[in-house]
Amino acid sequence: MQTPIPEYLTELLDDCAGDTSGATADYIPELGEADPNRLALALCTPDGTVYSVGDDSIEFTIQSISKPFAYALALRDRGMEEVDEHVGVEPSGDPFNEISVDPESGRPRNPMINIGAITTHCLVGNPSLTTKARAAVVLDGLSRFAGRTLEVDESVHASEYSTRYRNVALASMARSNGFIDIEPDDAVWGYTMQCSALVTVRDLSVMAMTLALGGRNPVTGEQVVPQWVCRQVLSVMTTCGMYDAAGDWLSHVGIPAKSGVSGGLLGSLPGQVGIGAFSPRLDDFGNSVRGVQLCERLSADMSLHIMELPPPSIDAIGWRSQTDDGDPLIVVQGPMTFPTAELVLRRFEQLPDNGCGIVIDLNPVTRINRVGARMLHEGIRRLEQDGHTVTVLQPEGLLASLS
Amino acid sequence: MQTPIPEYLTELLDDCAGDTSGATADYIPELGEADPNRLALALCTPDGTVYSVGDDSIEFTIQSISKPFAYALALRDRGMEEVDEHVGVEPSGDPFNEISVDPESGRPRNPMINIGAITTHCLVGNPSLTTKARAAVVLDGLSRFAGRTLEVDESVHASEYSTRYRNVALASMARSNGFIDIEPDDAVWGYTMQCSALVTVRDLSVMAMTLALGGRNPVTGEQVVPQWVCRQVLSVMTTCGMYDAAGDWLSHVGIPAKSGVSGGLLGSLPGQVGIGAFSPRLDDFGNSVRGVQLCERLSADMSLHIMELPPPSIDAIGWRSQTDDGDPLIVVQGPMTFPTAELVLRRFEQLPDNGCGIVIDLNPVTRINRVGARMLHEGIRRLEQDGHTVTVLQPEGLLASLS
Amino acid sequence: MQTPIPEYLTELLDDCAGDTSGATADYIPELGEADPNRLALALCTPDGTVYSVGDDSIEFTIQSISKPFAYALALRDRGMEEVDEHVGVEPSGDPFNEISVDPESGRPRNPMINIGAITTHCLVGNPSLTTKARAAVVLDGLSRFAGRTLEVDESVHASEYSTRYRNVALASMARSNGFIDIEPDDAVWGYTMQCSALVTVRDLSVMAMTLALGGRNPVTGEQVVPQWVCRQVLSVMTTCGMYDAAGDWLSHVGIPAKSGVSGGLLGSLPGQVGIGAFSPRLDDFGNSVRGVQLCERLSADMSLHIMELPPPSIDAIGWRSQTDDGDPLIVVQGPMTFPTAELVLRRFEQLPDNGCGIVIDLNPVTRINRVGARMLHEGIRRLEQDGHTVTVLQPEGLLASLS
Amino acid sequence: MQTPIPEYLTELLDDCAGDTSGATADYIPELGEADPNRLALALCTPDGTVYSVGDDSIEFTIQSISKPFAYALALRDRGMEEVDEHVGVEPSGDPFNEISVDPESGRPRNPMINIGAITTHCLVGNPSLTTKARAAVVLDGLSRFAGRTLEVDESVHASEYSTRYRNVALASMARSNGFIDIEPDDAVWGYTMQCSALVTVRDLSVMAMTLALGGRNPVTGEQVVPQWVCRQVLSVMTTCGMYDAAGDWLSHVGIPAKSGVSGGLLGSLPGQVGIGAFSPRLDDFGNSVRGVQLCERLSADMSLHIMELPPPSIDAIGWRSQTDDGDPLIVVQGPMTFPTAELVLRRFEQLPDNGCGIVIDLNPVTRINRVGARMLHEGIRRLEQDGHTVTVLQPEGLLASLS
Repeated sequence: MQTPIPEYLTELLDDCAGDTSGATADYIPELGEADPNRLALALCTPDGTVYSVGDDSIEFTIQSISKPFAYALALRDRGMEEVDEHVGVEPSGDPFNEISVDPESGRPRNPMINIGAITTHCLVGNPSLTTKARAAVVLDGLSRFAGRTLEVDESVHASEYSTRYRNVALASMARSNGFIDIEPDDAVWGYTMQCSALVTVRDLSVMAMTLALGGRNPVTGEQVVPQWVCRQVLSVMTTCGMYDAAGDWLSHVGIPAKSGVSGGLLGSLPGQVGIGAFSPRLDDFGNSVRGVQLCERLSADMSLHIMELPPPSIDAIGWRSQTDDGDPLIVVQGPMTFPTAELVLRRFEQLPDNGCGIVIDLNPVTRINRVGARMLHEGIRRLEQDGHTVTVLQPEGLLASLS
Repeated sequence: MQTPIPEYLTELLDDCAGDTSGATADYIPELGEADPNRLALALCTPDGTVYSVGDDSIEFTIQSISKPFAYALALRDRGMEEVDEHVGVEPSGDPFNEISVDPESGRPRNPMINIGAITTHCLVGNPSLTTKARAAVVLDGLSRFAGRTLEVDESVHASEYSTRYRNVALASMARSNGFIDIEPDDAVWGYTMQCSALVTVRDLSVMAMTLALGGRNPVTGEQVVPQWVCRQVLSVMTTCGMYDAAGDWLSHVGIPAKSGVSGGLLGSLPGQVGIGAFSPRLDDFGNSVRGVQLCERLSADMSLHIMELPPPSIDAIGWRSQTDDGDPLIVVQGPMTFPTAELVLRRFEQLPDNGCGIVIDLNPVTRINRVGARMLHEGIRRLEQDGHTVTVLQPEGLLASLS
Repeated sequence: MQTPIPEYLTELLDDCAGDTSGATADYIPELGEADPNRLALALCTPDGTVYSVGDDSIEFTIQSISKPFAYALALRDRGMEEVDEHVGVEPSGDPFNEISVDPESGRPRNPMINIGAITTHCLVGNPSLTTKARAAVVLDGLSRFAGRTLEVDESVHASEYSTRYRNVALASMARSNGFIDIEPDDAVWGYTMQCSALVTVRDLSVMAMTLALGGRNPVTGEQVVPQWVCRQVLSVMTTCGMYDAAGDWLSHVGIPAKSGVSGGLLGSLPGQVGIGAFSPRLDDFGNSVRGVQLCERLSADMSLHIMELPPPSIDAIGWRSQTDDGDPLIVVQGPMTFPTAELVLRRFEQLPDNGCGIVIDLNPVTRINRVGARMLHEGIRRLEQDGHTVTVLQPEGLLASLS
Repeated sequence: MQTPIPEYLTELLDDCAGDTSGATADYIPELGEADPNRLALALCTPDGTVYSVGDDSIEFTIQSISKPFAYALALRDRGMEEVDEHVGVEPSGDPFNEISVDPESGRPRNPMINIGAITTHCLVGNPSLTTKARAAVVLDGLSRFAGRTLEVDESVHASEYSTRYRNVALASMARSNGFIDIEPDDAVWGYTMQCSALVTVRDLSVMAMTLALGGRNPVTGEQVVPQWVCRQVLSVMTTCGMYDAAGDWLSHVGIPAKSGVSGGLLGSLPGQVGIGAFSPRLDDFGNSVRGVQLCERLSADMSLHIMELPPPSIDAIGWRSQTDDGDPLIVVQGPMTFPTAELVLRRFEQLPDNGCGIVIDLNPVTRINRVGARMLHEGIRRLEQDGHTVTVLQPEGLLASLS
C-alpha cells in the first residue's frame, strides 16, 4: 500500500498552480530575477517524515522567515527578560519596514518587523561577539533548526547591503533609542547576512516542525532551543507573523506562520505539522500568493487549525475495571495533561473507601507533561493516605522522572 | 479520596487576594458601587464539572464578556459571509469605545470593540425583529451558553441607557456607514440590555467551556452553535479580546479570553478548560487586576497555554502486533486527526504485500474528526485494493458515520 | 473712464471656465442636482464696493462656509474663554466629517470640522435658547455679516437632516465628552439649518470683507462682531480652513479661506479684500475646483498674499520740516501702528533740545490704532517734559479718542 | 527726548524674569550646561534699528532657528519646483525628531522638522559641493541674513555629531526614499554644523527683519534672497514653525516664528518687526518658556499680529481737489497696492468726461508694488484715451520703473 498523502499534496499543487497573480519583489535585482513560476510544498510530521512536491530542491533566500528563528536564538542566549527589554510582542499595524516602536520607550514593537528583527539579530550570542562572529552564530542556529548546514547567497547579501539605507534608518533609530549598541551599518550587515541564508521548502518544513515540537528537531533529534522559547515564538508569530492581516489569518487559516519576500512561507501547528511553501509572486501584503493558498487549503482540507483541538474523550480516559483479584483496575490512556489528569483524579474519588488494593495501569498513556505527572502523583499519594495499597504499572520511571 | 483541585483553587485565590490595586469602573454609578473586594474563580471541565471558589454565587453584569457570545449568535443566525460583511476580525489598537473602523469601507474593525459589538448585536436573529425581540433572542442565546436562564439587571440597563451618548455616537457612525439600519438609540438600547445580563463565575466557566467544546454545552449537552462558529469566535478573542495587549496576553497567558468592565474575566482553552473569574478592580486597560492574575497563575501552574500542545506520542499510536492467527493486528489508539492518522497510514505502508488478513482495532480511539476518519477509510480501501482482507473492529459505525 | 477691474474679473472667469474636472457632491440629492457649470466671482473692497461677474445672482446653500461665521457669533456671545473650553484651534489632519477630538480631553480640534462646528453652533446665543431660537440667532448673525436677510433652503435642510447619522455620531460624541448638552438630534437639526442658508457670491464677498475689516460690515456699516473676534476667526481659517492642505494653501495662495460642499469659496484678506466664488464641481479635498483656481489667480495676479505686506516707507513717514516761524514741523502720514509710530518717536529724538516750539501735523495719518495713538501721545508728553511747546494739528480728537 | 521703547522692553523683561519653569535641553551636555537664567530680547525695525535688552551679547547656538534660513537658501539656489519635489509644506503633528514623511511618496513633510531640515540642508548650493563646502555655503548664507560673519561652536558640533544616531536614522530614511543622495553620516555632519552657528538675540532680530522685509537686510542693505522666497518661508513658519501648537500660536500670538532647543526664539512680522529672544529653559513642546511669553506680550501690547492689519483709510487715499487752473487735482498718498489702487481707479471714474486737464500727484505715495503701479498706469492710460491731458507728479520714474 502507498499512503495517499503525496497524491493529495500533488493535487493541492496542481489546484494552485494556475494562479499567476501577484509579482516578485523587485527591491533588489536578485529577487526580481527569480523564476516566478516556481512552486513547491513540503510537510514535516512530528516523527520527522517529510513529504514534498514541486520544486522542492530549489534553494531560495530565507529572508523574513529567519526572524522567528533569530528571535528563538536570542531568547535561548539572553533569556526572556533581557530580550523582552529590547523588543516587544505587540502587533504593529505598520508595514514591515516602518519604524514601528513604542511611542514612549522607543522599544521596537515586535521581532517580526525589520526594526525588531535587526535588534533581535544583535541579541544572538555573547554581547562581545564581532559582527561576523554573530552572523555565524545565527547561521549555525538556523542550520540546527533545519537539520543541515545552510549556506549564504553572497550575491544577494551584497545586493541587500548595497541598498541598505532603510534598514540603516531602522538600526540608527534602535541605536538612538538605546536598544542596540553597535554601528548601524554593522547591524544591517549581519541582519542581511541572516536573511540571505539559502533554504528549500523541505528545510522550512523541518524548521517549522522543530518549533511545533517544542524545540526538538524531529530529524536530528537535537533540542535546538528550550520548549518555553517555542511557545513564545509561536505566540508572536500568531499575532505578528502575517503583517497586517493577523486577525484574518488566525480565524481563516489558524496556523502560526511567517512569510518572506523571496516567496517562502512557513507554517507551524503546535504538535501537529510543519509546513514549507514556495512561490515567488507576492500579494499586496508581501505574502506569497500561492503559498497563502496552499496553507488555506491545508487548513480547510485537513482541519489543521489551532482552535480545532480534539477534546479528550470523556468515555475513554481513565476507566475502571477489576483485576483478577477483584481489586479495582484503573487503566489510564491517551495524553495526560491538566484536563485529562483532572478526569482521572475525579475517578479516583469514586473508589470505595475500603482500603482495598488498587492497580493503576499507566502503560497506555501516550504522552504526559509535568503537570499531568504531578496530578497523578498527588492522587496516588492521597489514595495511599486513605489506606489503599496502590500498584502502579508504568513505563520505567514515568511519574518519577517528571514529578 | 478527595481531588486536590478545589484546594489548589483556594490557594490561588488566597495568593491573589492581597492585591487591592486598580479601581472599579465608575462611568455608571451601579458599577462604582460594586464591592471592590469581591473575588471568585470557577473552572469548568470538558465533562461539565464545575469547580468554584470565593464569591462564586455573586451575580454581576456580563458587560463586554457578552461580545464573543453575541458574535457567535450572529454567526449562527446570518452565516460567516453576511457577518463578515458587517464586522471585521482585525485588532484595532484603539480603546474599546473608540470609533474604530476600516478607513476605506467604514466597517467596524472587530466584534470586541463597542462599535463592532453594537453592529453584531443587530445581526442576531431575523432582520425583521423588533428591538425588544432581538434583545430577547440574544438573552436566550447567552442563557443557552450558560446552561440556565439569565436575568437582566434592569437598574444597570436603565443607567447605561441614560448615559448612552458615546455608544449612540458609535451606532450613528455604523448606521451612517451602512452597517446597521435601525435607529441608533434602539441599537444601543438592545446592546446595553445584552450587557446587563447577570452572571456568576460559574456561568462564565460553563459559557467558556461551551466555546472550547465546539459549541456543545458540557452541562446541558445542547449544541448551542455549530463548531465552525466557535473556531471563529476563539480566533477573534485571541487577537482582539484583551484590548491593547493581545500580543503580551497570548505569549504570556495563552488562553483566548474576554474581560468586562464589571470585573468579570472569561478564558476558554479549546478542548481543555473554561475559566470564569470575578474581581471588580480594573487595571489601566480595563481588565480585572486579580482576574488577570488568576489566569496567569492557571496558565503557568497548569501549563494551560494554547501553544503548549501535547505532541502525539510516536511510539504509542498505531502499533503493530499479531492476531492469534498470525495475521497482523493494528491497534489504533488516542485522538485520530491529521497527524495521527498520517502516522497510521505510514504504518499501513509497512505491511507485507502478501494478501494476508489484517485486523485493525479502532476501539481505543479516544476521538476522531472527519479528516481522521476519511484518512483511515482511504487507507483501508487501499489495503483491500492490494488484496488484503481487512477486519475493522470499531465502535458501532465509527468510520461510516464520519467519512 | 471705466475702471478695468470688471474686465479683469471677466477675463479671470473666462480663463477658468474651461476646466470641467471634479464632480458635484452627491451625498444629498439636492447638491448633486446643482448645475455643475455655474461659475461666479465677486470682490468686495474695504469701502463696500462689490464687483461681481458670472452667475452672481444664483443662490446656493452656504454649507461649511457658515462655520467661521458661527464661530464668530459664538465668540461674540460667550467670549474667548468659554468658547476655547469647548473647541480648539489646531488643524486636525482629518477629513471634515471625522471624529477629530483631542485624545485626552475629547475637545473638538477646531471649529472648521463638523464636530467642532456642531459644538460651535450650540454656543451661539444664550444657553437657554430652544433649538429653533438658536438657529434663528445664527441665521440672523449670518445675515448681518452679509448685509441682507438670508433665507433657508428648506428642502436642502430636510434632506440633510434625513441623512444626518454621521453628524449625529459627531454630536453624540461631543455630548458624551461633555462639550454640548442638548440632544444630538437637535444639535444636528440646528447645525444643518445653519448650513442651508442661501447666499450668492456677492453675499460671500461682503461677509469676507466684514471679517477682513475687523467685524464692520462695509456695506451696512454695522459692527457685527468685535475686532478681536475677527482676528481669532481669520487665524483659525488660516490653519484649518482648507482641510488637509493648509500649508500648501497658505504658501501658495496666502488668503485665509473657507470652502463649502455646494461649491462656494470665501477668501478674506485682512484690510484688503473679500472674495466670494462659486463653482459646484469639487476636487478630492472637497474644495471647488474653479473656486480654488480663481483664488490662485487673484493671489498671483494682484499680489494678494498675507505675507506680501507693504513695509512702511522709511523715507516718507514722519518727516521734518519747518514752520513759517522757523520751528520744526513734523508731518506724520500714512497708517500709524507700532512700526510707524516707532519711527516717528525716533525722529522726535533728533529734535534739538532747545525748548523751541514744535508743530506736529497728524492730518495725513490715514489710519491709527490704539498702540499708535498711545505711542504718539507718549512721545508728545516727553517732548513737553523736555520744555517744548507742542502744537498738534489733528482731526477732531484723534489721539484723545484712542489713548 | 528719549524714545520710550527701550524702557518698555526692559519692563517686559522684568515682567517675565521671575518665571523659572521649564528646563534646559540635556540631550547634549553642552546645552544642559547653559546658564538657565540668561534672558535677552531684541527688536529690529524696518530701517535696521535694533533695540536690545538683557543678555544681548551672549552667543548661543542657533539650532532649529537655522531651519527657515537654510530653506530660504535652498529656494534661492534650486528654485521652488526642485525644493518642492524634495520637501513639503504641510504641518506634521509629529515631534521634530520623528520620521515624518508623506505616507505615499516618502517626501519629508516640511522643512521645520529634522528630516525635512536635513534634506533642505543638502539642497543648498550646487549639487556637486563637498559636505564641507556645502556647510560653508550655509554658514555664509546665515551670516548674510544676520549682517555679520557668524562663527561655529565646534564643541557643540562635535557633541551633536557624536550623538547623531536619530538624525542618521532620518537621513537614512531620506536617502532610502530618494530625497538625498549623499551618505547619511555626511548629511548629518553638515546639518549639525549648520545648527552650531553662534548668534545673539540682536542677530536673530536682524535675521527676522530680513525675512520680514522680503529678503533685504535692513542693516547691510543686501538683498540676501528674492522676495518670493521670504513669502514662502514665512508661510511655512506660520503653519510649521512652532511644532504642535501652530493653531494656538497663530491665533494667540500671530507672529510667524521659529524656536530652537538652545532657548532661542525668532519672530518675523512681515513689514513690521523682527524679534529675537533668548532664555534656555524649555516647555514641553521644546519652546523657550520666557521666549514665548515675551512674544505673547509683544503681540498683545503692541498689536503685532498678522491678522491685525490696518485697513487703508477710505477718506484719506486718493482725494480730489483742484489746481490753480481749476483742473482736477488728485493727490494719491499712502501705500499703493491692489485695494488702494482700486480705490484710486474708482475715483478716476468720477472725473468729468469733459476732456479737461488732470493733475495726479503721486509724491505722497509711501510705497508701491508692481500691481499698484500697473493699475495706476492703466487708469492714466484710460483717462488719456478719454481725451484728458494728464500730468503726473511723481518721484523720478516711479511708475515707469515698475509697470
